[in-house]
Amino acid sequence: MKPYKEMTREELEAQKAELEKQFADAKGKGLQLDMSRGKPEPAQLDMGMALMDVLKSDSDMKCMEGIDTRNYGLLDGITEAKHLMADVMGAPAENVIVFGNSSLSIMYDMVSRSVTHGVMGSTPWCKLDKVKFLCPVPGYDRHFAITQHFGIEMITIPMTSDGPDMDLVEKYVSEDEAVKGIWCVPKYSNPSGVTYSDETVKRFAALKPAAKDFRIYWDNAYAVHHLYEDKQDTLLEILSECEKAGNPDIVYEFCSTSKISFSGAGIAAMASSPANLADIKKTLTLRTIGYDKVNQLRHARFFKNVEGMLAHMKKHADIIRPKFEAVLSVLEKELGGLGLGEWTKPLGGYFISFDAMDGCAKEIVAKCKEAGVVLTGAGATFPYGKDPKDSNIRIAPTYPTAEEMAAATDVFVLCVKLVSVEKLLAQL
Amino acid sequence: MKPYKEMTREELEAQKAELEKQFADAKGKGLQLDMSRGKPEPAQLDMGMALMDVLKSDSDMKCMEGIDTRNYGLLDGITEAKHLMADVMGAPAENVIVFGNSSLSIMYDMVSRSVTHGVMGSTPWCKLDKVKFLCPVPGYDRHFAITQHFGIEMITIPMTSDGPDMDLVEKYVSEDEAVKGIWCVPKYSNPSGVTYSDETVKRFAALKPAAKDFRIYWDNAYAVHHLYEDKQDTLLEILSECEKAGNPDIVYEFCSTSKISFSGAGIAAMASSPANLADIKKTLTLRTIGYDKVNQLRHARFFKNVEGMLAHMKKHADIIRPKFEAVLSVLEKELGGLGLGEWTKPLGGYFISFDAMDGCAKEIVAKCKEAGVVLTGAGATFPYGKDPKDSNIRIAPTYPTAEEMAAATDVFVLCVKLVSVEKLLAQL
Repeated sequence: MKPYKEMTREELEAQKAELEKQFADAKGKGLQLDMSRGKPEPAQLDMGMALMDVLKSDSDMKCMEGIDTRNYGLLDGITEAKHLMADVMGAPAENVIVFGNSSLSIMYDMVSRSVTHGVMGSTPWCKLDKVKFLCPVPGYDRHFAITQHFGIEMITIPMTSDGPDMDLVEKYVSEDEAVKGIWCVPKYSNPSGVTYSDETVKRFAALKPAAKDFRIYWDNAYAVHHLYEDKQDTLLEILSECEKAGNPDIVYEFCSTSKISFSGAGIAAMASSPANLADIKKTLTLRTIGYDKVNQLRHARFFKNVEGMLAHMKKHADIIRPKFEAVLSVLEKELGGLGLGEWTKPLGGYFISFDAMDGCAKEIVAKCKEAGVVLTGAGATFPYGKDPKDSNIRIAPTYPTAEEMAAATDVFVLCVKLVSVEKLLAQL
Repeated sequence: MKPYKEMTREELEAQKAELEKQFADAKGKGLQLDMSRGKPEPAQLDMGMALMDVLKSDSDMKCMEGIDTRNYGLLDGITEAKHLMADVMGAPAENVIVFGNSSLSIMYDMVSRSVTHGVMGSTPWCKLDKVKFLCPVPGYDRHFAITQHFGIEMITIPMTSDGPDMDLVEKYVSEDEAVKGIWCVPKYSNPSGVTYSDETVKRFAALKPAAKDFRIYWDNAYAVHHLYEDKQDTLLEILSECEKAGNPDIVYEFCSTSKISFSGAGIAAMASSPANLADIKKTLTLRTIGYDKVNQLRHARFFKNVEGMLAHMKKHADIIRPKFEAVLSVLEKELGGLGLGEWTKPLGGYFISFDAMDGCAKEIVAKCKEAGVVLTGAGATFPYGKDPKDSNIRIAPTYPTAEEMAAATDVFVLCVKLVSVEKLLAQL
């Protein structure tokens, strides 16, 4: 079929009539499918069930330090868990603090602490007239929700295939003292699947911020979340790059096992410079006597090391790869060459990012819903939930089965075509 | 022996010489004892080891709602954990949110949230010139550290055997709009062991705050931590009292299993009115997708209900009761009738509170340290670490053995006598 934009009014009208018939059929099927949830399916979680057998009533509950993990203490985590999480990030273990089950909480607390107490002695952000964060888009809605919650102005930065537009990032960061942070998902980015290029990472490390309390929020959520064995993205290790560039304190890195072991019961960690960690621990110690070290021990003994984790993630990949491929195959077959949208073909992570024709995303999501297919709300990948082009749609293939994903994508492409045809007709 | 205050100079001098000899002997023993740590001893933790066998690789990981505890979701906790923690507090399960492993974190976050976002739409505290908290003393140093961290002015309220001095509390709360909270440990209080009387609880519930965002921070940390089966304090349930008094939103209640299951790997909870919980959940959802539900499930299945928990706590009591009794017996035998101090004889909790003669506490703690016995720093039980009378010392008998506690208390009473004699001589 030829690109829709080259069609005459008559051809478009004919298409529309045909698509409406198909849509009515699809609606008639009473589907109930969900492509919105970036969460593991039960089979992935089942693979982690051996975690439950690691610690038994007769287990030695002491960690490497010889400290009883069941009791209070060890604010920054047990050594074996530090090593494990450090290796996930490629950072030295002494640069790591291990927390509870949520890396989102670490990020929230980091922003909250900066708002109330500043960063390493800087003015608390709540005392400033204006605080701004840079937000590469499309991006992760929960990042944006945190900054919005604290009244931080969000400035969108377009994503390229190499990461955020670094010319823009450098300009804002070096010129505006109100810019205090940037949200990054540097590997298999949410939702675009992009991994930042080496040059991008080096340019991040070499930033010359106007604000001395500017920090890069480096959410390395998908560090080991490859889909393929033979095709994998690699990400330059940011901490050492920052150190080399004379910027050791500029970055906070985060990761978790939420999509490795259990989404609700994993462990999370951050890596940063000794000076940042010391600053953080000063307030951390007021908030808790320590995180759940028993779960840290359980994870460290189960995975043993990052190799153990990578082997585990190969099994996850075997489950979710067919789902990604099912979506991509339908997209290619049904939309290839039609000029109705572009989409990413990620090598890892949890999402496929689809860019529809401008002004169509909301309508496509609504149409899908009408036919029983739930998508992430259009706009969710932008600050304030507002996609200025109304174009980006995030597809989350992991939770349903491959067959369900194929069926859901059939409905999706139908809705893309129908909404696009209507748009093109309206523009004639 | 007669009270020291009735002794002549000669008698005091003779005492002093004798005590100095004993002190030199004690120092010579090279003791290394610690009465400072309010934490369970390993045998208590061993009793919880069956927790580790509750969930195995073939366990059903669904909670009562039929939701997979391993995955994301259920922000406010699983129903069975809500019921368990509700029963600990005596509150209805629908008034409960179950969190991660630390109730201190819940309290910290509550204050932090009020600072940045206010309480139910009130002005964020960071926008106010002055915010004050009432602090019953002696009290819990970590409470005071949180309020100090956020620049909140702390006003001390003397403790009586019925709880805080309620005349003072009522006066401050009703007259000063800057008073936004009060820290309470209502049962087996840290460190005095006092349980608030029914009248005290009723007066709390009936407070008429000048500030509509005033809240009682009700840290029910020792709800089931009885030392005896036949002698137990009871605490009136605060939520229903507040509701009866027309003050449903005035209280936040907190508890945890830190001193029930594992200090580092338990579960924590709060109870409050539906309106407060709704307000809290609005921001909680930005910080996390959910707490560790697997550990919640493990705890709920292990204890089954509050009766199971009470049976478990009886075993704890059997371990720690002899330690309390060892301390109290030495105190009574060596200091009884001498007029050198007063101490509490709690029926539960984790501490004995000792009030030395005014101006002696720091010196006693220092002397003990010299002889190898570590005590909680004098002043720690007061805001800013400053005990105006320099009198209160917190004794934590749970971690060492009963024999060690007796030996440590021998040193303690010796130091009390020696420092008191010196004080009395200086006053002559």
